[in-house]
Amino acid sequence: MTDRLEAQFAFLNEADRLKHVMRATTTVDGARPENSGEHSWHLALYAVVLADQAEPGVDINRVIRMLLIHDLVEIDVGDVPIHSANGLAHASVETTTAEAKAADRIFGLLPPDLGASLRALWEEFEGAQSPDARFAKSLDRVQPVMANLMSGGGTWKTYDVTFQQLEDRVGVKIAKGAPTLWDWVKTKARPWFG
Amino acid sequence: MTDRLEAQFAFLNEADRLKHVMRATTTVDGARPENSGEHSWHLALYAVVLADQAEPGVDINRVIRMLLIHDLVEIDVGDVPIHSANGLAHASVETTTAEAKAADRIFGLLPPDLGASLRALWEEFEGAQSPDARFAKSLDRVQPVMANLMSGGGTWKTYDVTFQQLEDRVGVKIAKGAPTLWDWVKTKARPWFG
Repeated sequence: MTDRLEAQFAFLNEADRLKHVMRATTTVDGARPENSGEHSWHLALYAVVLADQAEPGVDINRVIRMLLIHDLVEIDVGDVPIHSANGLAHASVETTTAEAKAADRIFGLLPPDLGASLRALWEEFEGAQSPDARFAKSLDRVQPVMANLMSGGGTWKTYDVTFQQLEDRVGVKIAKGAPTLWDWVKTKARPWFG
Repeated sequence: MTDRLEAQFAFLNEADRLKHVMRATTTVDGARPENSGEHSWHLALYAVVLADQAEPGVDINRVIRMLLIHDLVEIDVGDVPIHSANGLAHASVETTTAEAKAADRIFGLLPPDLGASLRALWEEFEGAQSPDARFAKSLDRVQPVMANLMSGGGTWKTYDVTFQQLEDRVGVKIAKGAPTLWDWVKTKARPWFG
Protein backbone atom coordinates (compact mmCIF):
# COMPACT_ATOMS: atom_id res chain seq x y z
CA MET A 1 0.00 0.00 0.00
CA THR A 2 2.82 2.40 0.86
CA ASP A 3 4.54 1.94 -2.50
CA ARG A 4 1.20 2.30 -4.23
CA LEU A 5 0.46 5.60 -2.46
CA GLU A 6 3.98 6.83 -3.29
CA ALA A 7 3.21 6.24 -6.97
CA GLN A 8 -0.26 7.76 -6.77
CA PHE A 9 1.11 10.96 -5.21
CA ALA A 10 4.10 11.10 -7.56
CA PHE A 11 1.52 11.36 -10.35
CA LEU A 12 -0.79 13.81 -8.53
CA ASN A 13 2.12 16.10 -7.65
CA GLU A 14 3.43 16.00 -11.22
CA ALA A 15 -0.09 16.68 -12.58
CA ASP A 16 -0.04 19.97 -10.62
CA ARG A 17 2.30 21.34 -13.31
CA LEU A 18 -0.66 21.53 -15.71
CA LYS A 19 -1.66 24.66 -13.75
CA HIS A 20 1.37 26.37 -15.34
CA VAL A 21 0.61 25.43 -18.97
CA MET A 22 -0.92 28.49 -20.60
CA ARG A 23 -3.47 28.41 -23.40
CA ALA A 24 -4.21 30.97 -26.13
CA THR A 25 -7.81 31.19 -24.91
CA THR A 26 -8.55 33.64 -22.09
CA THR A 27 -10.91 33.47 -19.14
CA VAL A 28 -14.47 34.51 -19.98
CA ASP A 29 -13.83 38.10 -18.81
CA GLY A 30 -10.77 38.35 -21.07
CA ALA A 31 -8.55 39.29 -18.11
CA ARG A 32 -5.82 36.70 -18.68
CA PRO A 33 -5.03 33.49 -20.57
CA GLU A 34 -6.49 30.44 -18.92
CA ASN A 35 -4.22 27.55 -17.94
CA SER A 36 -4.81 23.93 -18.88
CA GLY A 37 -5.57 22.86 -15.30
CA GLU A 38 -8.49 25.25 -14.81
CA HIS A 39 -9.54 24.61 -18.43
CA SER A 40 -9.80 20.89 -17.59
CA TRP A 41 -12.00 21.71 -14.59
CA HIS A 42 -14.25 23.96 -16.65
CA LEU A 43 -14.61 21.26 -19.31
CA ALA A 44 -15.50 18.57 -16.79
CA LEU A 45 -18.18 20.96 -15.49
CA TYR A 46 -19.36 21.41 -19.09
CA ALA A 47 -19.85 17.64 -19.24
CA VAL A 48 -21.87 17.64 -16.00
CA VAL A 49 -24.11 20.50 -17.18
CA LEU A 50 -24.43 19.60 -20.87
CA ALA A 51 -24.88 15.86 -20.44
CA ASP A 52 -28.29 16.13 -22.11
CA GLN A 53 -26.52 17.14 -25.35
CA ALA A 54 -24.72 13.78 -25.58
CA GLU A 55 -26.00 11.18 -28.02
CA PRO A 56 -27.65 8.04 -26.60
CA GLY A 57 -25.13 5.54 -25.25
CA VAL A 58 -22.59 8.10 -24.06
CA ASP A 59 -21.31 7.35 -20.54
CA ILE A 60 -21.00 10.82 -19.07
CA ASN A 61 -18.90 9.62 -16.14
CA ARG A 62 -16.27 8.29 -18.57
CA VAL A 63 -16.44 11.59 -20.47
CA ILE A 64 -15.76 13.51 -17.25
CA ARG A 65 -12.71 11.34 -16.46
CA MET A 66 -11.47 11.71 -20.03
CA LEU A 67 -11.69 15.51 -19.77
CA LEU A 68 -9.90 15.53 -16.41
CA ILE A 69 -6.84 13.82 -17.97
CA HIS A 70 -7.07 14.91 -21.62
CA ASP A 71 -4.45 17.67 -21.44
CA LEU A 72 -1.88 16.11 -19.07
CA VAL A 73 0.59 15.47 -21.91
CA GLU A 74 0.80 19.27 -22.30
CA ILE A 75 3.01 19.29 -19.19
CA ASP A 76 5.76 18.10 -21.56
CA VAL A 77 4.63 19.35 -24.97
CA GLY A 78 2.63 22.53 -24.22
CA ASP A 79 -0.70 23.63 -25.65
CA VAL A 80 -1.09 24.00 -29.43
CA PRO A 81 -3.79 26.62 -30.23
CA ILE A 82 -6.28 25.35 -32.84
CA HIS A 83 -6.04 28.42 -35.10
CA SER A 84 -2.23 28.75 -34.89
CA ALA A 85 0.07 27.51 -37.69
CA ASN A 86 0.99 24.49 -35.56
CA GLY A 87 -2.65 23.86 -34.76
CA LEU A 88 -3.58 23.86 -38.44
CA ALA A 89 -0.82 21.35 -39.14
CA HIS A 90 -2.31 19.16 -36.41
CA ALA A 91 -1.44 15.51 -35.95
CA SER A 92 2.04 15.95 -37.39
CA VAL A 93 4.27 12.93 -36.80
CA GLU A 94 6.45 15.05 -34.49
CA THR A 95 3.53 16.11 -32.26
CA THR A 96 2.07 12.61 -32.09
CA THR A 97 5.45 11.14 -31.16
CA ALA A 98 6.09 13.81 -28.51
CA GLU A 99 2.65 13.33 -26.97
CA ALA A 100 3.05 9.55 -26.83
CA LYS A 101 6.39 10.01 -25.07
CA ALA A 102 4.81 12.43 -22.61
CA ALA A 103 2.00 9.95 -21.94
CA ASP A 104 4.60 7.20 -21.31
CA ARG A 105 6.34 9.37 -18.75
CA ILE A 106 3.32 10.89 -16.99
CA PHE A 107 0.94 7.92 -16.81
CA GLY A 108 4.04 5.79 -16.12
CA LEU A 109 4.33 7.45 -12.70
CA LEU A 110 1.15 5.65 -11.57
CA PRO A 111 0.80 2.09 -10.29
CA PRO A 112 0.75 -0.06 -13.48
CA ASP A 113 -2.98 -0.99 -13.36
CA LEU A 114 -4.09 2.61 -12.92
CA GLY A 115 -1.53 3.99 -15.36
CA ALA A 116 -2.64 1.57 -18.08
CA SER A 117 -6.32 2.36 -17.62
CA LEU A 118 -5.88 6.16 -17.66
CA ARG A 119 -3.51 5.98 -20.62
CA ALA A 120 -6.07 3.92 -22.53
CA LEU A 121 -8.70 6.54 -21.71
CA TRP A 122 -6.40 9.30 -23.01
CA GLU A 123 -5.76 7.34 -26.21
CA GLU A 124 -9.49 6.87 -26.67
CA PHE A 125 -9.93 10.65 -26.36
CA GLU A 126 -7.14 11.31 -28.86
CA GLY A 127 -8.60 8.77 -31.28
CA ALA A 128 -11.94 10.65 -31.23
CA GLN A 129 -13.78 7.58 -32.55
CA SER A 130 -15.87 6.23 -29.64
CA PRO A 131 -19.13 8.02 -28.73
CA ASP A 132 -17.63 9.07 -25.37
CA ALA A 133 -14.51 10.51 -27.04
CA ARG A 134 -16.52 12.29 -29.72
CA PHE A 135 -18.64 14.03 -27.09
CA ALA A 136 -15.58 14.91 -25.00
CA LYS A 137 -13.92 16.40 -28.10
CA SER A 138 -17.05 18.42 -28.87
CA LEU A 139 -16.95 20.01 -25.42
CA ASP A 140 -13.21 20.69 -25.73
CA ARG A 141 -13.94 22.58 -28.98
CA VAL A 142 -17.01 24.48 -27.80
CA GLN A 143 -15.55 25.91 -24.59
CA PRO A 144 -13.04 28.20 -26.39
CA VAL A 145 -15.83 29.38 -28.73
CA MET A 146 -17.83 30.54 -25.70
CA ALA A 147 -14.74 32.16 -24.13
CA ASN A 148 -14.05 34.04 -27.38
CA LEU A 149 -17.67 35.17 -27.65
CA MET A 150 -17.81 36.33 -24.03
CA SER A 151 -14.44 38.11 -24.13
CA GLY A 152 -15.05 39.97 -27.40
CA GLY A 153 -13.21 37.85 -29.97
CA GLY A 154 -10.22 36.31 -28.18
CA THR A 155 -8.22 33.94 -30.39
CA TRP A 156 -10.40 34.78 -33.41
CA LYS A 157 -8.79 38.23 -33.31
CA THR A 158 -5.32 36.88 -32.51
CA TYR A 159 -5.34 34.56 -35.51
CA ASP A 160 -7.62 36.60 -37.81
CA VAL A 161 -10.19 33.81 -38.12
CA THR A 162 -13.20 33.97 -40.48
CA PHE A 163 -16.59 32.41 -39.77
CA GLN A 164 -15.96 29.86 -42.54
CA GLN A 165 -12.66 28.89 -40.88
CA LEU A 166 -14.39 28.56 -37.53
CA GLU A 167 -16.97 26.28 -39.12
CA ASP A 168 -14.31 24.19 -40.91
CA ARG A 169 -11.80 23.92 -38.07
CA VAL A 170 -14.09 23.79 -35.06
CA GLY A 171 -17.76 23.56 -35.97
CA VAL A 172 -17.45 20.32 -37.92
CA LYS A 173 -15.83 18.69 -34.89
CA ILE A 174 -18.35 20.01 -32.38
CA ALA A 175 -21.18 18.78 -34.63
CA LYS A 176 -19.72 15.26 -34.70
CA GLY A 177 -20.38 14.70 -31.01
CA ALA A 178 -23.06 17.30 -30.25
CA PRO A 179 -24.93 18.47 -33.37
CA THR A 180 -27.69 20.42 -31.57
CA LEU A 181 -25.10 22.20 -29.48
CA TRP A 182 -23.21 23.40 -32.57
CA ASP A 183 -26.44 24.58 -34.22
CA TRP A 184 -27.12 26.73 -31.18
CA VAL A 185 -23.56 28.02 -30.70
CA LYS A 186 -23.29 28.83 -34.41
CA THR A 187 -26.23 31.23 -34.25
CA LYS A 188 -24.49 32.94 -31.30
CA ALA A 189 -21.09 33.12 -33.02
CA ARG A 190 -22.09 34.18 -36.54
CA PRO A 191 -22.99 37.82 -35.73
CA TRP A 192 -19.53 38.43 -34.23
CA PHE A 193 -17.96 37.84 -37.65
CA GLY A 194 -20.26 40.51 -39.18
CA MET B 1 -34.13 23.67 -25.95
CA THR B 2 -32.89 27.17 -26.73
CA ASP B 3 -33.96 28.56 -23.36
CA ARG B 4 -32.43 25.55 -21.66
CA LEU B 5 -29.08 26.07 -23.40
CA GLU B 6 -29.21 29.79 -22.50
CA ALA B 7 -29.51 28.81 -18.85
CA GLN B 8 -26.84 26.12 -19.05
CA PHE B 9 -24.34 28.57 -20.55
CA ALA B 10 -25.31 31.38 -18.18
CA PHE B 11 -24.17 29.02 -15.42
CA LEU B 12 -21.03 27.78 -17.22
CA ASN B 13 -19.92 31.34 -18.04
CA GLU B 14 -20.54 32.46 -14.46
CA ALA B 15 -18.64 29.42 -13.14
CA ASP B 16 -15.58 30.67 -15.04
CA ARG B 17 -15.15 33.30 -12.33
CA LEU B 18 -13.95 30.58 -9.94
CA LYS B 19 -10.63 30.80 -11.86
CA HIS B 20 -10.16 34.23 -10.23
CA VAL B 21 -10.80 33.14 -6.61
CA MET B 22 -7.41 32.79 -4.95
CA ARG B 23 -6.58 30.33 -2.16
CA ALA B 24 -3.96 30.53 0.58
CA THR B 25 -2.44 27.27 -0.67
CA THR B 26 0.14 27.49 -3.46
CA THR B 27 0.86 25.29 -6.44
CA VAL B 28 3.11 22.32 -5.61
CA ASP B 29 6.23 24.23 -6.74
CA GLY B 30 5.34 27.15 -4.43
CA ALA B 31 5.45 29.58 -7.37
CA ARG B 32 2.05 31.19 -6.81
CA PRO B 33 -1.25 30.76 -4.95
CA GLU B 34 -3.58 28.31 -6.66
CA ASN B 35 -7.06 29.38 -7.66
CA SER B 36 -10.24 27.55 -6.77
CA GLY B 37 -10.93 26.47 -10.37
CA GLU B 38 -7.65 24.63 -10.87
CA HIS B 39 -7.90 23.37 -7.26
CA SER B 40 -11.27 21.80 -8.14
CA TRP B 41 -9.69 20.09 -11.16
CA HIS B 42 -6.80 18.79 -9.09
CA LEU B 43 -9.21 17.43 -6.47
CA ALA B 44 -11.37 15.66 -9.05
CA LEU B 45 -8.17 14.05 -10.33
CA TYR B 46 -7.35 13.07 -6.74
CA ALA B 47 -10.70 11.24 -6.64
CA VAL B 48 -9.93 9.39 -9.90
CA VAL B 49 -6.48 8.33 -8.70
CA LEU B 50 -7.22 7.66 -5.02
CA ALA B 51 -10.56 5.89 -5.51
CA ASP B 52 -9.09 2.78 -3.87
CA GLN B 53 -8.82 4.75 -0.60
CA ALA B 54 -12.60 5.21 -0.40
CA GLU B 55 -14.60 3.06 1.98
CA PRO B 56 -16.91 0.41 0.51
CA GLY B 57 -20.13 1.87 -0.84
CA VAL B 58 -18.65 5.18 -1.96
CA ASP B 59 -19.77 6.13 -5.49
CA ILE B 60 -16.64 7.71 -6.91
CA ASN B 61 -18.50 9.28 -9.84
CA ARG B 62 -20.70 11.21 -7.41
CA VAL B 63 -17.58 12.21 -5.46
CA ILE B 64 -15.99 13.59 -8.65
CA ARG B 65 -19.11 15.65 -9.44
CA MET B 66 -19.24 16.91 -5.87
CA LEU B 67 -15.63 18.07 -6.07
CA LEU B 68 -16.22 19.80 -9.41
CA ILE B 69 -18.92 22.02 -7.85
CA HIS B 70 -17.87 22.14 -4.18
CA ASP B 71 -16.24 25.58 -4.30
CA LEU B 72 -18.59 27.45 -6.66
CA VAL B 73 -20.11 29.49 -3.81
CA GLU B 74 -16.64 31.04 -3.38
CA ILE B 75 -17.40 33.16 -6.45
CA ASP B 76 -19.50 35.26 -4.07
CA VAL B 77 -17.97 34.60 -0.64
CA GLY B 78 -14.27 33.89 -1.38
CA ASP B 79 -12.05 31.17 0.04
CA VAL B 80 -11.61 30.88 3.81
CA PRO B 81 -8.20 29.30 4.64
CA ILE B 82 -8.52 26.48 7.20
CA HIS B 83 -5.76 27.77 9.50
CA SER B 84 -6.82 31.45 9.33
CA ALA B 85 -8.83 33.12 12.13
CA ASN B 86 -11.96 32.92 9.99
CA GLY B 87 -11.25 29.30 9.14
CA LEU B 88 -10.92 28.40 12.82
CA ALA B 89 -14.28 30.06 13.49
CA HIS B 90 -15.76 27.89 10.74
CA ALA B 91 -19.46 27.40 10.21
CA SER B 92 -20.34 30.77 11.69
CA VAL B 93 -23.95 31.76 11.07
CA GLU B 94 -22.75 34.60 8.82
CA THR B 95 -20.68 32.29 6.59
CA THR B 96 -23.41 29.69 6.35
CA THR B 97 -26.00 32.32 5.42
CA ALA B 98 -23.70 33.93 2.83
CA GLU B 99 -22.90 30.56 1.25
CA ALA B 100 -26.56 29.58 1.05
CA LYS B 101 -27.33 32.87 -0.66
CA ALA B 102 -24.48 32.30 -3.11
CA ALA B 103 -25.78 28.81 -3.84
CA ASP B 104 -29.26 30.26 -4.48
CA ARG B 105 -27.84 32.69 -6.99
CA ILE B 106 -25.32 30.46 -8.77
CA PHE B 107 -27.23 27.15 -8.99
CA GLY B 108 -30.32 29.28 -9.70
CA LEU B 109 -28.85 30.21 -13.09
CA LEU B 110 -29.36 26.61 -14.27
CA PRO B 111 -32.55 25.02 -15.61
CA PRO B 112 -34.56 24.15 -12.44
CA ASP B 113 -34.08 20.34 -12.63
CA LEU B 114 -30.32 20.60 -13.02
CA GLY B 115 -29.98 23.45 -10.54
CA ALA B 116 -31.87 21.52 -7.86
CA SER B 117 -29.79 18.37 -8.35
CA LEU B 118 -26.42 20.16 -8.25
CA ARG B 119 -27.47 22.26 -5.28
CA ALA B 120 -28.50 19.10 -3.41
CA LEU B 121 -25.09 17.60 -4.22
CA TRP B 122 -23.36 20.73 -2.87
CA GLU B 123 -25.45 20.57 0.32
CA GLU B 124 -24.55 16.92 0.74
CA PHE B 125 -20.86 17.89 0.48
CA GLU B 126 -21.28 20.68 3.01
CA GLY B 127 -23.13 18.35 5.38
CA ALA B 128 -20.17 15.92 5.33
CA GLN B 129 -22.37 13.08 6.58
CA SER B 130 -22.87 10.69 3.64
CA PRO B 131 -20.02 8.30 2.73
CA ASP B 132 -19.55 10.13 -0.60
CA ALA B 133 -19.35 13.53 1.11
CA ARG B 134 -16.98 12.25 3.81
CA PHE B 135 -14.57 10.95 1.17
CA ALA B 136 -14.84 14.16 -0.89
CA LYS B 137 -14.07 16.20 2.26
CA SER B 138 -11.06 13.98 3.02
CA LEU B 139 -9.60 14.71 -0.40
CA ASP B 140 -10.31 18.43 -0.04
CA ARG B 141 -8.31 18.38 3.23
CA VAL B 142 -5.43 16.22 2.05
CA GLN B 143 -4.58 18.15 -1.13
CA PRO B 144 -3.36 21.29 0.72
CA VAL B 145 -1.29 19.08 3.05
CA MET B 146 0.54 17.67 0.02
CA ALA B 147 0.95 21.16 -1.49
CA ASN B 148 2.44 22.44 1.79
CA LEU B 149 4.78 19.46 2.03
CA MET B 150 5.96 19.80 -1.57
CA SER B 151 6.41 23.58 -1.40
CA GLY B 152 8.32 23.65 1.88
CA GLY B 153 5.66 24.56 4.43
CA GLY B 154 3.18 26.82 2.68
CA THR B 155 0.22 27.79 4.86
CA TRP B 156 1.76 26.03 7.87
CA LYS B 157 4.41 28.77 7.84
CA THR B 158 1.90 31.54 7.04
CA TYR B 159 -0.29 30.64 10.02
CA ASP B 160 2.41 29.21 12.33
CA VAL B 161 0.74 25.80 12.58
CA THR B 162 1.95 23.02 14.91
CA PHE B 163 1.73 19.31 14.14
CA GLN B 164 -0.90 18.94 16.87
CA GLN B 165 -2.98 21.68 15.24
CA LEU B 166 -2.64 19.99 11.86
CA GLU B 167 -3.86 16.75 13.40
CA ASP B 168 -6.78 18.44 15.18
CA ARG B 169 -7.91 20.74 12.38
CA VAL B 170 -7.19 18.60 9.33
CA GLY B 171 -6.07 15.07 10.19
CA VAL B 172 -9.23 14.16 12.10
CA LYS B 173 -11.31 15.14 9.07
CA ILE B 174 -9.15 13.29 6.56
CA ALA B 175 -9.30 10.19 8.76
CA LYS B 176 -13.11 10.28 8.79
CA GLY B 177 -13.35 9.50 5.08
CA ALA B 178 -9.95 7.96 4.33
CA PRO B 179 -8.22 6.59 7.45
CA THR B 180 -5.40 4.75 5.65
CA LEU B 181 -4.64 7.84 3.62
CA TRP B 182 -4.24 9.99 6.74
CA ASP B 183 -1.98 7.38 8.36
CA TRP B 184 0.31 7.56 5.35
CA VAL B 185 0.22 11.35 4.93
CA LYS B 186 0.84 11.83 8.66
CA THR B 187 4.15 9.96 8.48
CA LYS B 188 5.13 12.24 5.60
CA ALA B 189 4.06 15.44 7.35
CA ARG B 190 5.38 14.84 10.87
CA PRO B 191 9.12 15.34 10.09
CA TRP B 192 8.45 18.81 8.64
CA PHE B 193 7.32 20.02 12.07
CA GLY B 194 10.61 18.79 13.64
